[in-house]
Amino acid sequence: MGRRYDTISFLSDYGTDDELVGVVKSVIRELAPHAHIIDLTHGVPPFDVRAGSLALARSISYVASGIVIAAVDPTVGTARRAVAIEVADGEGVLIGPDNGLLAPAVAMTGGAGRTVSLTNSEYQLASPGLTSIGRDVFAPAAAHLCNGVDLAELGDEIDADLLMPGVVPLPQADAERVIAQVLWVDRFGNAQLNVGVDDLADTFGERLTVRFSAPTDPSGGTTRSVVRVDAFAEVGAGAIGMLVDGSGMLAVVMNERSVAEELGLDVGDQVTLSPADDDGVSSAGSPQPVTIAPGPRR
Amino acid sequence: MGRRYDTISFLSDYGTDDELVGVVKSVIRELAPHAHIIDLTHGVPPFDVRAGSLALARSISYVASGIVIAAVDPTVGTARRAVAIEVADGEGVLIGPDNGLLAPAVAMTGGAGRTVSLTNSEYQLASPGLTSIGRDVFAPAAAHLCNGVDLAELGDEIDADLLMPGVVPLPQADAERVIAQVLWVDRFGNAQLNVGVDDLADTFGERLTVRFSAPTDPSGGTTRSVVRVDAFAEVGAGAIGMLVDGSGMLAVVMNERSVAEELGLDVGDQVTLSPADDDGVSSAGSPQPVTIAPGPRR
Amino acid sequence: MGRRYDTISFLSDYGTDDELVGVVKSVIRELAPHAHIIDLTHGVPPFDVRAGSLALARSISYVASGIVIAAVDPTVGTARRAVAIEVADGEGVLIGPDNGLLAPAVAMTGGAGRTVSLTNSEYQLASPGLTSIGRDVFAPAAAHLCNGVDLAELGDEIDADLLMPGVVPLPQADAERVIAQVLWVDRFGNAQLNVGVDDLADTFGERLTVRFSAPTDPSGGTTRSVVRVDAFAEVGAGAIGMLVDGSGMLAVVMNERSVAEELGLDVGDQVTLSPADDDGVSSAGSPQPVTIAPGPRR
Repeated sequence: MGRRYDTISFLSDYGTDDELVGVVKSVIRELAPHAHIIDLTHGVPPFDVRAGSLALARSISYVASGIVIAAVDPTVGTARRAVAIEVADGEGVLIGPDNGLLAPAVAMTGGAGRTVSLTNSEYQLASPGLTSIGRDVFAPAAAHLCNGVDLAELGDEIDADLLMPGVVPLPQADAERVIAQVLWVDRFGNAQLNVGVDDLADTFGERLTVRFSAPTDPSGGTTRSVVRVDAFAEVGAGAIGMLVDGSGMLAVVMNERSVAEELGLDVGDQVTLSPADDDGVSSAGSPQPVTIAPGPRR
Repeated sequence: MGRRYDTISFLSDYGTDDELVGVVKSVIRELAPHAHIIDLTHGVPPFDVRAGSLALARSISYVASGIVIAAVDPTVGTARRAVAIEVADGEGVLIGPDNGLLAPAVAMTGGAGRTVSLTNSEYQLASPGLTSIGRDVFAPAAAHLCNGVDLAELGDEIDADLLMPGVVPLPQADAERVIAQVLWVDRFGNAQLNVGVDDLADTFGERLTVRFSAPTDPSGGTTRSVVRVDAFAEVGAGAIGMLVDGSGMLAVVMNERSVAEELGLDVGDQVTLSPADDDGVSSAGSPQPVTIAPGPRR
Repeated sequence: MGRRYDTISFLSDYGTDDELVGVVKSVIRELAPHAHIIDLTHGVPPFDVRAGSLALARSISYVASGIVIAAVDPTVGTARRAVAIEVADGEGVLIGPDNGLLAPAVAMTGGAGRTVSLTNSEYQLASPGLTSIGRDVFAPAAAHLCNGVDLAELGDEIDADLLMPGVVPLPQADAERVIAQVLWVDRFGNAQLNVGVDDLADTFGERLTVRFSAPTDPSGGTTRSVVRVDAFAEVGAGAIGMLVDGSGMLAVVMNERSVAEELGLDVGDQVTLSPADDDGVSSAGSPQPVTIAPGPRR
């Protein structure tokens, strides 16, 4: 027997309009009644492995010890492996498809320990048709781990170095300019960038000139003056601010308004940061008037 | 005292934008703190008894032993009875309105055992106004059952044969043709039909000709060539496939795309399957060009 | 040590498309594994303190004994205090921002007992950037209270009389007329008014004349005949009814239809009730034909 676990954190692109999340939990409840399940989110956009991996990465340092199920899997039913990866000396096990979804979270928890491909059908459910990987593979694997089944029982051990890596876009940064992109737009319309606070050179002061452009926008986008702040409330009405958000990343924000809506920002848009030149410095907290170029945005 | 239960599975059309689901859980928590509640889904479209009964039917073979609350009830406040139905020799009790919502799930668990109308107000909450059937009737009934109150205490026993039956549309099938309908469009846009794998005669080969038509579409709909597959990944780009889904039903699908969006499919649309005639056979995995007739679809 | 708690009820404007709700629960799970968390709702519109306070007020008499976390806080990161308020002789503790969100619920539970400002960083999490008040302040406070940490340990005691009051609009009522407003439109499109059943004078009979007008509508709005009923099913097809809803408030409703959609009603709209004059009385249950004035509604 392996160690036992009592918490399962669960992230997916299943949504909650259908019963699939409930069915996964029912399978776990029947097999491991003591297990406590925490929904991280099921609102990952359908098939969006990148968004799912980022949500998991933002969560992972807060996730309770135990099992994580992450289910965002466009390639359901192919030869793509389902895997379980021990992390943090067995404090946790991450279960999901081998498509890069788990990679950033695995890295943030210190890297993969023992890793198995979930091939042992004894620890899976039979399906009346297509295998539902969450219901038939991930849920019973998580439940059996909670019950003390050792990871090695769930399938063939594989080389963690051969797992598909995650794709996290890195910013291009120098003293003059940072070319970044929007990683995430949250419910409040704040736009997180792929830039940590340390990626900004000392040459950047309290004011920046920032150009926002959609990948398909031929106009070159919109340029705005942005002020660095420590809190939403420091951003003047109508102005655009930049702060270090709760994940430790730079985010473009407005005060009680959605900057994403204001500027038509979306995940993947390019955001270029430069120190404000003297001409570009606008008065404190007030917006710099610009023409917002119309683009083929949805 | 009756037997005790410790799991309540809960399905409704309440949504989660308001507090009603949370209030039902709070009532249960106060009355039966040991009960564990699993949300199957609260995303059933408002008043849609048929959609609710199908979601429950898809779930029921996975639901943990215990109580099920199903609340989709357009006729709130009328003489329509609230009922509790024992199934599987008392392994489970289904609680809901007597409007057909529970019927398919009851049938799938072997039929109704003892059945009561929830008339005993001792096991209900008083309302400051209109009775909220989930909060005031279903939740306390479920909690008291969990605490070991016998089903017979909750109200008058009634004849299960007089419960309102469910309405599940059957396909019309012969060797030449199956006239089916779309039962369910899931989050990923896959369209489940009311056709089990055994409903397709042997005369049907790997390729089908399928006509899709909305009830109100005067044009006769859209005809496409469809290939039978075992996995999403076997469907070529842009092509339409048919597989046996995780519920054991035939479903029309595309690979990493929403077939419902592609064809404008909706629940209730008619889908007519025929074996592909030789002329209609297109090359493997590629779509057959057709004119998609515009229809009065929302 | 103070008393221990084992239930945390949680309401927010976080939505569930992102992982924030899951992260808050993960923090609690790690600190107080025995605590049971009930989601009241996370669908409060972003920044809408008024909607959040009303949802909490509708819930509070059903909420299980224990802790409540309420997180709707447009002023994140300012000097606005985070507070914890003991209610009902310590049966419950309400945690949230001091912005009026908690005020109606505190009043409904008998008023504030001991109240502290959550200033003790020993019982908070450090953030890599901006403080996430739910994750870094509210969640650990709730968990430590569950573990028996006394309220007084969490920060400086403050005078409850200085808490920001809630803003609940009162109706203007006399024997001839009640000028009310729409407090809440539920998922089914029913429009709850800020009118309790006792606010309606005896001069009001079974039929009312009701004028609905949006704040920005120059036309004076729409006037309809409304019949008072005890249940949805008593409202004739296409007619508009008024009943005492499950919260004990008057609500404008239709039978199996959304009255909000039918009349274009929204939260904050003015609703003026008068006894029906003889001319205005239409035949039982049938709608009175009116011209619905077009307004600048979304």
